[in-house]
Amino acid sequence: MKKIKVGILGATGMVGQRFIQLLENHPWFEISALAASERSAGKTYQESMVGRWKLETPIPKDVRGMEVKECTPDLDCGVVFSALDSSVAGPVEEKFACAGYVVSSNSKNHRMDDDVPLLIPEINGDHLEIISAQKKRIGSNGFIVTNPNCSTIGLVMGVAPLHKKYGVTKIVVTTMQALSGAGYPGVASLDILDNVVPYIGGEEDKVETEPQKILGTVKNRRFVMADMLISASCNRVNVKDGHLETVSVEMKAKPSREELIATLETYNPLRGLDLPFAPPQPIVVSEENDRPQPRFDRDEGKGMACVVGRIRKCSVLDYKFLVLSHNTIRGAAGAAILNAEYMKVKGYVE
Amino acid sequence: MKKIKVGILGATGMVGQRFIQLLENHPWFEISALAASERSAGKTYQESMVGRWKLETPIPKDVRGMEVKECTPDLDCGVVFSALDSSVAGPVEEKFACAGYVVSSNSKNHRMDDDVPLLIPEINGDHLEIISAQKKRIGSNGFIVTNPNCSTIGLVMGVAPLHKKYGVTKIVVTTMQALSGAGYPGVASLDILDNVVPYIGGEEDKVETEPQKILGTVKNRRFVMADMLISASCNRVNVKDGHLETVSVEMKAKPSREELIATLETYNPLRGLDLPFAPPQPIVVSEENDRPQPRFDRDEGKGMACVVGRIRKCSVLDYKFLVLSHNTIRGAAGAAILNAEYMKVKGYVE
Amino acid sequence: MKKIKVGILGATGMVGQRFIQLLENHPWFEISALAASERSAGKTYQESMVGRWKLETPIPKDVRGMEVKECTPDLDCGVVFSALDSSVAGPVEEKFACAGYVVSSNSKNHRMDDDVPLLIPEINGDHLEIISAQKKRIGSNGFIVTNPNCSTIGLVMGVAPLHKKYGVTKIVVTTMQALSGAGYPGVASLDILDNVVPYIGGEEDKVETEPQKILGTVKNRRFVMADMLISASCNRVNVKDGHLETVSVEMKAKPSREELIATLETYNPLRGLDLPFAPPQPIVVSEENDRPQPRFDRDEGKGMACVVGRIRKCSVLDYKFLVLSHNTIRGAAGAAILNAEYMKVKGYVE
Amino acid sequence: MKKIKVGILGATGMVGQRFIQLLENHPWFEISALAASERSAGKTYQESMVGRWKLETPIPKDVRGMEVKECTPDLDCGVVFSALDSSVAGPVEEKFACAGYVVSSNSKNHRMDDDVPLLIPEINGDHLEIISAQKKRIGSNGFIVTNPNCSTIGLVMGVAPLHKKYGVTKIVVTTMQALSGAGYPGVASLDILDNVVPYIGGEEDKVETEPQKILGTVKNRRFVMADMLISASCNRVNVKDGHLETVSVEMKAKPSREELIATLETYNPLRGLDLPFAPPQPIVVSEENDRPQPRFDRDEGKGMACVVGRIRKCSVLDYKFLVLSHNTIRGAAGAAILNAEYMKVKGYVE
Repeated sequence: MKKIKVGILGATGMVGQRFIQLLENHPWFEISALAASERSAGKTYQESMVGRWKLETPIPKDVRGMEVKECTPDLDCGVVFSALDSSVAGPVEEKFACAGYVVSSNSKNHRMDDDVPLLIPEINGDHLEIISAQKKRIGSNGFIVTNPNCSTIGLVMGVAPLHKKYGVTKIVVTTMQALSGAGYPGVASLDILDNVVPYIGGEEDKVETEPQKILGTVKNRRFVMADMLISASCNRVNVKDGHLETVSVEMKAKPSREELIATLETYNPLRGLDLPFAPPQPIVVSEENDRPQPRFDRDEGKGMACVVGRIRKCSVLDYKFLVLSHNTIRGAAGAAILNAEYMKVKGYVE
Repeated sequence: MKKIKVGILGATGMVGQRFIQLLENHPWFEISALAASERSAGKTYQESMVGRWKLETPIPKDVRGMEVKECTPDLDCGVVFSALDSSVAGPVEEKFACAGYVVSSNSKNHRMDDDVPLLIPEINGDHLEIISAQKKRIGSNGFIVTNPNCSTIGLVMGVAPLHKKYGVTKIVVTTMQALSGAGYPGVASLDILDNVVPYIGGEEDKVETEPQKILGTVKNRRFVMADMLISASCNRVNVKDGHLETVSVEMKAKPSREELIATLETYNPLRGLDLPFAPPQPIVVSEENDRPQPRFDRDEGKGMACVVGRIRKCSVLDYKFLVLSHNTIRGAAGAAILNAEYMKVKGYVE
Repeated sequence: MKKIKVGILGATGMVGQRFIQLLENHPWFEISALAASERSAGKTYQESMVGRWKLETPIPKDVRGMEVKECTPDLDCGVVFSALDSSVAGPVEEKFACAGYVVSSNSKNHRMDDDVPLLIPEINGDHLEIISAQKKRIGSNGFIVTNPNCSTIGLVMGVAPLHKKYGVTKIVVTTMQALSGAGYPGVASLDILDNVVPYIGGEEDKVETEPQKILGTVKNRRFVMADMLISASCNRVNVKDGHLETVSVEMKAKPSREELIATLETYNPLRGLDLPFAPPQPIVVSEENDRPQPRFDRDEGKGMACVVGRIRKCSVLDYKFLVLSHNTIRGAAGAAILNAEYMKVKGYVE
Repeated sequence: MKKIKVGILGATGMVGQRFIQLLENHPWFEISALAASERSAGKTYQESMVGRWKLETPIPKDVRGMEVKECTPDLDCGVVFSALDSSVAGPVEEKFACAGYVVSSNSKNHRMDDDVPLLIPEINGDHLEIISAQKKRIGSNGFIVTNPNCSTIGLVMGVAPLHKKYGVTKIVVTTMQALSGAGYPGVASLDILDNVVPYIGGEEDKVETEPQKILGTVKNRRFVMADMLISASCNRVNVKDGHLETVSVEMKAKPSREELIATLETYNPLRGLDLPFAPPQPIVVSEENDRPQPRFDRDEGKGMACVVGRIRKCSVLDYKFLVLSHNTIRGAAGAAILNAEYMKVKGYVE
């Protein structure tokens, strides 16, 4: 099979680096274009990354010598993954969509747009039907699809199977988020050593609103938000990767703990699609009393699974538990890649 | 004024060390006896602490040469502060009380006993009236008074003024607790580097039950528990001192944010008593958007105040906020010292 | 090819765990026996490791149900890897050797023995000839071979090519060692947070003496120590894995920087032997100005290479540089496995 | 006594903040002017520091409302402490000196100038005589005096008493430096978590050259450098404050260990001068086997003493030991304040 050519917008940042790392040897996609800000444009990727490549594995050989382009829609590819900073992502992604590119974006700018899917293939693959409305609006064959915020994604994956079966009505969530979520240089070491920073700009709002779109439905080419109350408290802790969240939920139905666990463990709507980035089991339930832990569990399913643990009764709502997901894989680059894979098998990408 | 002689049970552990550090130059109390396990007994304090003193300030000169005794009720003092491990604290504290000592304990063993106050002077000083029942039961002039668990204390201090004025009915709390709370050696570095441990044995149960006693009342010489639902999720983070907690509360009355802040800031029942360890303001409200933070705020009021921040509406309950308190000062040794000071001015200690 | 059965002594400790992790799917060896202290004996490996398995990858499936035996020489294997604690390793390893086992040991006890090789295959493979003397002494076909201390190994690998070519006469080395080198629970988090511990018991002595044996020669069945002066200062830093060392060397010959780098980069005596654990290049030289760094470089060559960087003139001795190696792979379990592989191709293991 | 008015140049950076913290309630000096870059100029200090004040104690009340000025020589004071960034310090400090101010600078720019003292009062107070040459050159009553680099200062304080008595000829030093030495935001958390960064731009050069000036002499109004060889390897470790260094020295004379310790402990040339910032004992020798440690010893002498430990024979040079000093107190702001105090009692400041 001939591989599909993909480009990366914002290729030099933390999420851009993850795209490059994760796409090495991808069976369906091959990187044919890298784009970033003017500062890097014109250099080879290797040159532009001196002192900036922050992953533990080296820069893949294939992209080292590739020239970094500007983020203009003349890249040699049909799909672009966007890791652009939110200060520029909005209009740039639109330009690419208007020019006919499929844009799989990790940026926040278009997530809540009326005709843009906020996609997690395991949860709301059917939201792709909104794309026809989007294409019509912009008059192009291109379009934008987004994935959720890195702390939303773990929460929603843990909650979605429960919502579909039991009807979640209230959620109280506290996040303990990793440093890589803030990009590079991001959090200063003097701010986080021997400390927790109990504030992340804009984060609580995203966690409180995005799930309602993801868990909502599409009716008559319009999104109908899920009807639930969410309260989030977001914190930065001294951890490299992996967002850990304490979650309490109230549900209409009142399942037993065993039913609830079975519901989570057997949830796997992508089974049979053989998507390269779909983990064998999207939600892994741990029965150990002190798990999940970021360092030990973030790589579950190559970083694409989320791990739920300590499921127990909540004395205020119904149940409480922990959920952990890898914030730059399942919560960012990996999410956008899985979205593209899903769109391919569903015929949205050729 | 002649100082009151005090002894320290469990003087070699982390909390015992804090007692010694905090009592240096105390205006009312002087350490006249140190007691610990057989392993240390017979040595000078300095000798027994080689490689074990873990505070940043040196061992106070007055206690270095003091002989460490066994924990038997023949110490030269009238008050003992107990930092004993819960594996031994139960019967040892009883023996001291029966022998006529006033026991101000940080250990968990007797906290929930029917005639033992679980005291925070700013909140439930009137609970001391139960002591007469205790004295009668054990037939002694001695008695036991306890202070709450280190993570309970911050929560209750933040919640008590609201409860007294508005009637708190539900609490959802997630703690991010410091390493020193686990004692020494406590948490292995390999367990916490680049990690969070989302489990602390027994902790959630304490946080869910102790507040109901503290915020309850004494009627006819019996405790009546406060009627509220509490759900706690307790986590260990890579911080030396200072427990940070995210708290959501539901209340019967519905105050405005301004009223609520005023209620917290003006709360100071100990005003005028001039207790050496009472902070000028027990609850300090921060209006900065990213505070309190453990490293920057744990020493507020010499570690005896608790800092509340980010007070805002909760979409599930009524309000949510953060609360921080120093776990080995306000949450342990400092709490027991303040209790003794309060008992002195109320005539329970001579 | 039928795989060689190997056993692991001390299978439950940190180094024991690494042996198990690294031997999963080894092309030549298969684990057929696990042994540890009485406390674990009789349990399955999985049972005995509840709360003790500290690697990020899960326990390999093949060993989970294996019964942990006691460390007595009746194991079903021909080779044992020893990760025993030094408090017991001495006599236990002797018993296994006397009973005919080949013992590839990471423990310190026999390292400096007169007829026991302290082996790094890339450096002193010829030291294996001493084994015949050992076999004769103990009257067995079994024997003991050891690998160096985790902080010695990086130093010696960086220095050996220079010594062989230019004659190293003096070394001043300062180590910054990782937490995993102290085992589990090892270093308390309260000791290392916001801190460096500038002392590791016995370590400086090992670093100052072991290289003289490794870089020495065997003449008439006796070791002749290398004639060099070594001064070591050993420190523990807040890093999970990877010992980083600053090294200054004086040499008889005075190579240029380019010659010295070429000597290091081309050094590869195992080339052509196709040992599974031999890295493609044992010494990787970095020309970046701030490398090697533990987190980014410790996994070079799957943790079996050592990385040398910042090679520059020393104003007191001749040259100075940094060397980094993974302390529980190249510095412990991986070293012992490579030793066994080398012994196999050299006919010492069947 | 009327206090001397002092100003702070670069008042908003990390070292500037330390100046402000340390000068609160200084018995001789009072802050009358704060100056910083244009970005801050015109605001109150409190306003300009929102989110930027990074010390654990709050901003002193007296300076909160003070207006931040630009760094031009029209400040209402006679002495300025300079914490300016090296990108601007050079000409700005000169302007102030030319305008008649006494400039006590922590910046590197003028440290090696021919007529500028690189002052540590305990070591080379006599170097102040060079000031007359400087005044003459610039034709002003003002002048510049500098203090050494933060990693030089600990090294030189540990070495100076030995040099004066035994003649130090060679030094090999490896530093493990704290994060605060890099300013704010300085080191990114993603760079230092689970890591060591073995490079600090320009640092090794400073450590290798500054001591030769400090330990040198002034003859005929010219500096004569000390004749010694120094080799430095500088590393950044995950510690907030306190530079720890391993040091090996060769000396002309060969004292016993006891003599050497006595020489260090009794060294106190400032005894009797009653300088507020002079520690009671500038060099504290620890005999514990694992000290000094940054977190436990950096505040010795209120951060103005340096702690030497683990003094033992070096097999390559003569002796080796550890030295620790607080990098932003003794190594920066405190050093400049002590310099000003010393100049006052010596009649250089009125």
